[in-house]
Amino acid sequence: MPAEYSVGVLGATGAVGREMLRSLQDRGFPVKSLRPLASSRSAGSKVEFDGQELTVLEAGPGSFEGLDIALFSAGGAASARFAPEAAAAGCVVVDNSSCWRQDPRVPLVIPEVNAGAVRRHKGIIANPNCSTIQMLVALKPIYDAVGIRRIVVSTYQAVSGTGQKGVEELSEQTRKLFRSEEIAPKVYPHRIAFNCLPHVDVFLENGYTKEEMKMVNETVKIFDDPNIKVSATCVRVPVFYGHSEAVWIETGRPIKPEAARELLMRAPGVLVQDDPASALYPLASEAAGREEVFVGRIRSDFSCENGLTMWVVADNLKKGAATNAVEIAELLVRAPGLLSVDWPAGPPVSA
Amino acid sequence: MPAEYSVGVLGATGAVGREMLRSLQDRGFPVKSLRPLASSRSAGSKVEFDGQELTVLEAGPGSFEGLDIALFSAGGAASARFAPEAAAAGCVVVDNSSCWRQDPRVPLVIPEVNAGAVRRHKGIIANPNCSTIQMLVALKPIYDAVGIRRIVVSTYQAVSGTGQKGVEELSEQTRKLFRSEEIAPKVYPHRIAFNCLPHVDVFLENGYTKEEMKMVNETVKIFDDPNIKVSATCVRVPVFYGHSEAVWIETGRPIKPEAARELLMRAPGVLVQDDPASALYPLASEAAGREEVFVGRIRSDFSCENGLTMWVVADNLKKGAATNAVEIAELLVRAPGLLSVDWPAGPPVSA
Repeated sequence: MPAEYSVGVLGATGAVGREMLRSLQDRGFPVKSLRPLASSRSAGSKVEFDGQELTVLEAGPGSFEGLDIALFSAGGAASARFAPEAAAAGCVVVDNSSCWRQDPRVPLVIPEVNAGAVRRHKGIIANPNCSTIQMLVALKPIYDAVGIRRIVVSTYQAVSGTGQKGVEELSEQTRKLFRSEEIAPKVYPHRIAFNCLPHVDVFLENGYTKEEMKMVNETVKIFDDPNIKVSATCVRVPVFYGHSEAVWIETGRPIKPEAARELLMRAPGVLVQDDPASALYPLASEAAGREEVFVGRIRSDFSCENGLTMWVVADNLKKGAATNAVEIAELLVRAPGLLSVDWPAGPPVSA
Repeated sequence: MPAEYSVGVLGATGAVGREMLRSLQDRGFPVKSLRPLASSRSAGSKVEFDGQELTVLEAGPGSFEGLDIALFSAGGAASARFAPEAAAAGCVVVDNSSCWRQDPRVPLVIPEVNAGAVRRHKGIIANPNCSTIQMLVALKPIYDAVGIRRIVVSTYQAVSGTGQKGVEELSEQTRKLFRSEEIAPKVYPHRIAFNCLPHVDVFLENGYTKEEMKMVNETVKIFDDPNIKVSATCVRVPVFYGHSEAVWIETGRPIKPEAARELLMRAPGVLVQDDPASALYPLASEAAGREEVFVGRIRSDFSCENGLTMWVVADNLKKGAATNAVEIAELLVRAPGLLSVDWPAGPPVSA
């Protein structure tokens, strides 16, 4: 009989947490027991897993005792506090917040891109930003084949990236506009219904948002390539599920669109949809609920040497968050010894 | 008493045509008489101009007799047919379709960018594509100051760019989704409600859409610079009015964001909204109904030499179409002799 594992999910009632439960189940992760955890606000509520109704427990001292793996999606503050506690209790944490991503002790992992990095973990593994994950899954085969010097990306990000409250905000504002009722933005600084906000996460001193700089810094760390250049503009759009991205790359050596398409058709986790004549290209509406990264509109960028451009779409809650976290957990249980914890203690540090 | 002019509007019942009437009125264009024209389908319907209700006439032989200027927005086929007829009748045409834009006999004009080109007209002047207009109004002061070698742009285009039917499609699909009714896309090949379609205008052999190549070719013609490189990804988003654009440029000489911001604050037709700390940046929701081009999020692009990136928004029916056309008409009546016509005859030719 194959081994089974005790799994915790912190933030089990959130948009990503619920997807984590669904993903563990749908992908057939070998779960011996499932412990849903959340803040006191959500403790006591019920979640479903594998046909059972489970009561969500409040995260606190002792919450991680006896767990082999915990998937975290409860925000940066909860991750900063509970990840070291969980690791101290011998539980490996796969954390979806941005809190540990640049910590040099913490691998930042996309299984299709840098699965090997998981071997260096000491108890905490970080799940990259949703926008970074789908971009790098699409770019990895090209990076390996001809190198990539520079990436320019603009995003079209769904409101579910902000959690359930983003979904409710778009829904409520849309209904109100159709009834000609007044709108008071709560979740976003401006109306999101029928609008595009070039503002995802907070602004930094350099004029970029934190979300945009995540795409820069996480790409460097995941490709382990300090020379790769990235510029991003991240935009929230009135879409419920599925992030889209317009991506331009400058490769190290020339590659034709046909060759890139061939590489992507064989790439793990990628589904090529690229037949413009039949109006076939990736769409958020089609990617929603799917685990793959969809790539299309692959064409030469004639405006520079070795330029290539493409359109990349994925479900931000699945491959952009929950699926990737569960895939990391799969890496952990697939190879022997990867569930051992040796966390050096201490708070998150920046690279 | 200042001169007044007989003005025709072809396509007077369309989304852009109605804006043309409004713009002529709002900007106080010296109209002696206004002749609304349309295809047989819309002939007989009523439009308002300057407090009067006017009956739309069917465009046909003789429609342009006695007119000084005609603004066209009735699609490429109507423009190809009627523009030479109008010019033959001594009427200067300002055409909003793409049909004449690359014709070497036809100036392609954005008053803030290349007003002088209007002097070379022979009877037909082309209004550029909406996405091109707002981008070049924003880039012109930087182009003049330090040169621009390359532009990368991704668009977030409103459905009103497709005309009134685009507005109705988004509205109807949104309502139906909220009632859980089934959707059958009519205007776009896929659902536009809560979705992003990387498909504006038709696809060409090179993998780009016609809209994307318009941004490339019109930029070259308007800047009169065969060396400027452009790569575009054009995307339709669920927004009613106002196109947004993420624009990256590589300048000839270095320029700091502060200097670019200063230039733009003094630039005609531009309104800088750039205070991220106060969540101030251009928004389609704010630009709708306005004539300016809004620019913000001006920052260095650290991924290349002399890189700069920004966010540009404008009302696609106003500055992107009707306002620009009326501004061209204003150039024509402001300088003596510009209303004379010397059309060499013949159908549209490509450059």
